[in-house]
Amino acid sequence: MNTSKIAHRALRINRTPLKHSVRHRSTRAASTCPLPTPADRPSFPCVEAHAARESRILNSGNPPSIFSTQFPSQPSSSSSTNTGPEPPYARPSPTSYKTYHHSEPLPLTYAPSLPQFDVAYETWGSLSPAKDNVILLHTGLSASSHAASSELNPSEGWWEKFIGPGKALDTDQFFIICTNVLGGCYGSTGPSSIDPTIGQPYATRFPVLSIFDMVRAQFCLLDHLGIDKLYASVGSSMGAMQSLAAGWLFPERVGKIVSISGTARSSPSAIAMRFAQRSVLMADPNWNNGFYYGGLPPHTGMKLARQIATITYRSGPEWDQRFGRKVRSITPVQSSNTSPSNLNSDSRKLPRTPALCPDFLIETYLDYQGEQFCLKYDANSLIYISKAMDLFDLTSSSLASLNLTPPQPTSSQPPEPPTHSSHPSSPAHRYYHSQLSHSKHHPPPPNPPPHLPELAEGLMPLANTPTLILGVQSDILFPVEQQREVADALRMAGNQMVSYYELGGVWGHDTFLLDVQNVGGAIRGFLS
Amino acid sequence: MNTSKIAHRALRINRTPLKHSVRHRSTRAASTCPLPTPADRPSFPCVEAHAARESRILNSGNPPSIFSTQFPSQPSSSSSTNTGPEPPYARPSPTSYKTYHHSEPLPLTYAPSLPQFDVAYETWGSLSPAKDNVILLHTGLSASSHAASSELNPSEGWWEKFIGPGKALDTDQFFIICTNVLGGCYGSTGPSSIDPTIGQPYATRFPVLSIFDMVRAQFCLLDHLGIDKLYASVGSSMGAMQSLAAGWLFPERVGKIVSISGTARSSPSAIAMRFAQRSVLMADPNWNNGFYYGGLPPHTGMKLARQIATITYRSGPEWDQRFGRKVRSITPVQSSNTSPSNLNSDSRKLPRTPALCPDFLIETYLDYQGEQFCLKYDANSLIYISKAMDLFDLTSSSLASLNLTPPQPTSSQPPEPPTHSSHPSSPAHRYYHSQLSHSKHHPPPPNPPPHLPELAEGLMPLANTPTLILGVQSDILFPVEQQREVADALRMAGNQMVSYYELGGVWGHDTFLLDVQNVGGAIRGFLS
Repeated sequence: MNTSKIAHRALRINRTPLKHSVRHRSTRAASTCPLPTPADRPSFPCVEAHAARESRILNSGNPPSIFSTQFPSQPSSSSSTNTGPEPPYARPSPTSYKTYHHSEPLPLTYAPSLPQFDVAYETWGSLSPAKDNVILLHTGLSASSHAASSELNPSEGWWEKFIGPGKALDTDQFFIICTNVLGGCYGSTGPSSIDPTIGQPYATRFPVLSIFDMVRAQFCLLDHLGIDKLYASVGSSMGAMQSLAAGWLFPERVGKIVSISGTARSSPSAIAMRFAQRSVLMADPNWNNGFYYGGLPPHTGMKLARQIATITYRSGPEWDQRFGRKVRSITPVQSSNTSPSNLNSDSRKLPRTPALCPDFLIETYLDYQGEQFCLKYDANSLIYISKAMDLFDLTSSSLASLNLTPPQPTSSQPPEPPTHSSHPSSPAHRYYHSQLSHSKHHPPPPNPPPHLPELAEGLMPLANTPTLILGVQSDILFPVEQQREVADALRMAGNQMVSYYELGGVWGHDTFLLDVQNVGGAIRGFLS
Repeated sequence: MNTSKIAHRALRINRTPLKHSVRHRSTRAASTCPLPTPADRPSFPCVEAHAARESRILNSGNPPSIFSTQFPSQPSSSSSTNTGPEPPYARPSPTSYKTYHHSEPLPLTYAPSLPQFDVAYETWGSLSPAKDNVILLHTGLSASSHAASSELNPSEGWWEKFIGPGKALDTDQFFIICTNVLGGCYGSTGPSSIDPTIGQPYATRFPVLSIFDMVRAQFCLLDHLGIDKLYASVGSSMGAMQSLAAGWLFPERVGKIVSISGTARSSPSAIAMRFAQRSVLMADPNWNNGFYYGGLPPHTGMKLARQIATITYRSGPEWDQRFGRKVRSITPVQSSNTSPSNLNSDSRKLPRTPALCPDFLIETYLDYQGEQFCLKYDANSLIYISKAMDLFDLTSSSLASLNLTPPQPTSSQPPEPPTHSSHPSSPAHRYYHSQLSHSKHHPPPPNPPPHLPELAEGLMPLANTPTLILGVQSDILFPVEQQREVADALRMAGNQMVSYYELGGVWGHDTFLLDVQNVGGAIRGFLS
């Protein structure tokens, strides 16, 4: 047995879990004295990147503290420049948001109550004296409360172009609140938070959450702020689920609902994609059943998970246009196929040698996105929140199984636009109504899904809430069929104030982050 | 520091790469005496499954030999019953196929030649005296040469229902040959084979392959068998790429081409899905830069990769129908959310506790598919062959970059049907022509992809070869747009014998394995 083989085996065996590692380590540890990899063996920079990242974390001397509820900051050192038109991803610091501490227990959907919790939040605009101009903005899975720049945090937010004076969420009219969700890692209570009963992070002792739990926590904050009724509940992606859940739980307290690229019932194909992400994450030995706080986080699993997620955020047509089949211009550093000595040579001029590591630009893009993300978000938060998305289902049978009694729909009229509403002749207003007339003609589905009547029954509490449903035809994560399904179910539930938009374009699920003109225009029109 | 924390840290550190692991192990090995996980910490059966699998392999005493070219057999112990209508996946034994050994060098596309190679193959039907009734059947990525049962191997093959007397590939008329591809692990030379120049497995010293290389190796076998011309070249998925490549490389030797759910130019979205699979595989420490032969294979990475692949093989609508949002009936064995003592309890009746491990049936299905596959196929073969798929591109500029000079198209007429051709009034014949008349009306694309003219130029060698292109509307891996693209490009190249089929249904990419009536019927009609 050569030494490199010994080294490999040592690595492998030490990776086995506790009960096995003990046995193997005791018999093999003495023989582990590895030498460098033989020169004839190829190297793989994409694999070495994981070890290099780990080394950087260790050498920085700044692993996350086991007694800190703040998820750690680690710089990303990826040198790729394939950023493209990605949305900004700014991580908040503890001083860049406000925190509401709720000291009473919060009953949960699937578990007894959380004893207490924090909700981190940020606001834009001014609260009117009547407190009637409030928009609650819900985030997607991994976004923080930092939706837009502010005095407290001047860095760009994830919806920077949608929030501000005259923008889709007009701060001249509205007071906008965005929270970090329960279960998250940006200031709200989540798996990385200290369990006050034991003085250690919850880790996977944290209870499984539902979207309803997240929304209830948000409404505790609203209670604290003295806000009785929202002008609107607005969200995209998971935020759209929260937006619908808010209207469902508190129909009397939600004036309008905006649901963009979301769903009222997570589909098996979306569950499959999130399951794949959780699987690669949980298979990272650093995950350690969720108990990694104070040690190294599962950064490799997080990178792999984000690569998979990124595939679902855009569309094939966008990649066709953006990357096509282009490859890196740099000759890949990989010797596996660069004329190895054991292959016969001939006089032919060989083409550029492809690499097994990222080589096509689509690969380097995914690699870069994974690298950028893997130390910015808590792995357990990703697991819990993605699971909450999977569990979301507003069909009546699902709601019944959760012992959720549907609230009675409000019989009140749609809210009056706040002061300073845009004039009917304004471009935003005209744009909205030109689209609305189209959406009103959205035909009923030729083959409605069998659960549609049940979904309509489940959505009864929203029967009197004006609702905007916006979908994107190139979205593969929340496909347009699901958007139509929500709109159809709402109408079947008796809601005559459903606006339905369907956008083209190639940006897929991420359209809500990028298409200021169409997404922003639809929201602005609907809210005016 | 409590003992469980020590154990966790030891695990983590021992997983760091060579240079780090040595340092840490020497200083910490003596202190690692882990105790069992504290009772208040949840367990995760889906994570423990990886260690249990590893333990089974080690205890079986049968890790793959470093000096064996035959990929090892390890039983899967998954107890899930969510098999559904999956195609059979029979692994061949060395005695169940024939092997052709080619002792001359094979020039490769991206590297100097392979010094020698084997091609494993199986046959069905009888070779006619004129040797003019031969169909070369190409496999998908991970299938073996065992397409159907035979005297040599009576177990069911992956295309069992398509091969036999009176079937799509009619053994009463045709002599069918199916090979294991170069780069594979089922008898043909691949990364797990012994490099004769050093007496050890190639591993990742194996050269990057192209689809052209695979086809050239197949034609060496045909030369050996004295077969000058194929009646037809037939393939699905990657086999469709090979089928087109065969017609491109040897237009004089290929009478007809069948391309099912394939492409003539791999798209960035398909590359992205295969990249995600390679990434999770290569991140498995057991992969060890490809040098795992004689040790433990990267079984966890393979399981994760297969889970991702399986998502691309079916469709959302199928999962909606098959699994919906159903969950396992068994209460999950996971304590993370079953009323932990640190959460307040109340008098409510809580719903069934969801698990973070596979819980929805779609999750258990993917888990099961990954578990079934992870020890049946060689990881390096998956990497090399999936890369060959990514590299496949028949546009003229790509071909020029490979220094491939397009052969002149043959001016010969389409081949005469062999003896015993089905009568024009036969059901198969009528079925085919009724479909053909439809396919002839396939309209040109409203927005043709910009590379279409280049693809047409690249496909010029196929201008005179009757070709059947069959696609499936629910295929997300090789979407129907790509099928139309191939058909359109062939017609633009002057091919007036293009038959184009487009199937509905919910089986997605796997339709070619399942839809005997429509896929089989189309093939049978086209070949008659």
